[in-house]
Amino acid sequence: MIDKQTLETLEKRQRVALINSLPGFKPVVLVGTMNEEKQTNVCVINSCFHVGADPALMGMIIRPAPEGTERHTLENILATETYSVNAVARAMARRAHHTSARFARDQSEFYACGFAQQWREGFVAPFVSESPLQLGLKLAEHLPLTINGTHLIIGSIEQIHLSDNAQRNDGSLDLQGMDIVAGVGLDAYHSTGTYQRFSYAKPDKPPELI
Amino acid sequence: MIDKQTLETLEKRQRVALINSLPGFKPVVLVGTMNEEKQTNVCVINSCFHVGADPALMGMIIRPAPEGTERHTLENILATETYSVNAVARAMARRAHHTSARFARDQSEFYACGFAQQWREGFVAPFVSESPLQLGLKLAEHLPLTINGTHLIIGSIEQIHLSDNAQRNDGSLDLQGMDIVAGVGLDAYHSTGTYQRFSYAKPDKPPELI
Repeated sequence: MIDKQTLETLEKRQRVALINSLPGFKPVVLVGTMNEEKQTNVCVINSCFHVGADPALMGMIIRPAPEGTERHTLENILATETYSVNAVARAMARRAHHTSARFARDQSEFYACGFAQQWREGFVAPFVSESPLQLGLKLAEHLPLTINGTHLIIGSIEQIHLSDNAQRNDGSLDLQGMDIVAGVGLDAYHSTGTYQRFSYAKPDKPPELI
Repeated sequence: MIDKQTLETLEKRQRVALINSLPGFKPVVLVGTMNEEKQTNVCVINSCFHVGADPALMGMIIRPAPEGTERHTLENILATETYSVNAVARAMARRAHHTSARFARDQSEFYACGFAQQWREGFVAPFVSESPLQLGLKLAEHLPLTINGTHLIIGSIEQIHLSDNAQRNDGSLDLQGMDIVAGVGLDAYHSTGTYQRFSYAKPDKPPELI
């Protein structure tokens, strides 16, 4: 067992690597923003989560300083109340990871890391052109978490862009078919393999494969 | 494009399936709790996320009624301020999915779904015995989200239980070696395949494979 006392004695990078691995496989997305001077920013985030389907809401945790990139993302979201969330496919993983470096404010990670910006009518924030699943969000709630100085950002989903054959008849998405990766910890990007889907669960019998 | 207006016209199950697929691959965990009458409960949750490494904090979103199981989990966490978070391996996926059914309060999903409880010295909540990665948490913060009536639960990580060979020298965990699954939407459980890990990112050059 690793207990709380042991955790506190771990060397910082060891502890960060361990604790970041604990939730399991995580979503990996690129968050695209623009500031009021039209400077764009894109930043890899692996703390996105589902908040609700009606209204359609997605949450994420953003860490401010000293991580420069996330701080710029947070400032831009608060200023424009608009951002894009773009899924990361396998071919994008290295460049997505590169966006976590501490770029200067006047450097756009789009250019520095090799992603093309995509603009859409009536939407202030840039999308990542090659992403197979692009979401446009409006800031719906901002909760600074006093417990550790991070920020909870909840956005309402305004736009969903995906290829026609990515959605199944039941409404769900074939993320594996889009070659989207699953993250682990701070630096690992997994492709996915076989999967099982189960029927809606009822108390009296085990769910069936669908 | 699917826009907000289109989303609102979708049939409910279609919309729920779509919106739950949007974050990408998600952690799948079993949350184990006990109430003050020593009735145990275990419930699958796929909205866990990393909040911070120092202190070690993990968050999750819990939906209260009408989903019975999550409501019991929330009540138990608020009553005992203690819960376990247990990773789901492939062989556990069907039974984990079964815990999402609306069981009565006096039915323990441990028995109904086929999981053994594991008790540990000085810890009130039950762990899921066969899980390869078991965490013991204390409630650190409870934030009801007025935006949609869900609850943000943040826990401090008090105990980590895993097999010796699951941790790499750098502190990170080999989740794939533990056969842990990645979730999609409401009902899909993926195994993972090949992966890439990249070096700590710096602005001036692309990260290298490690």
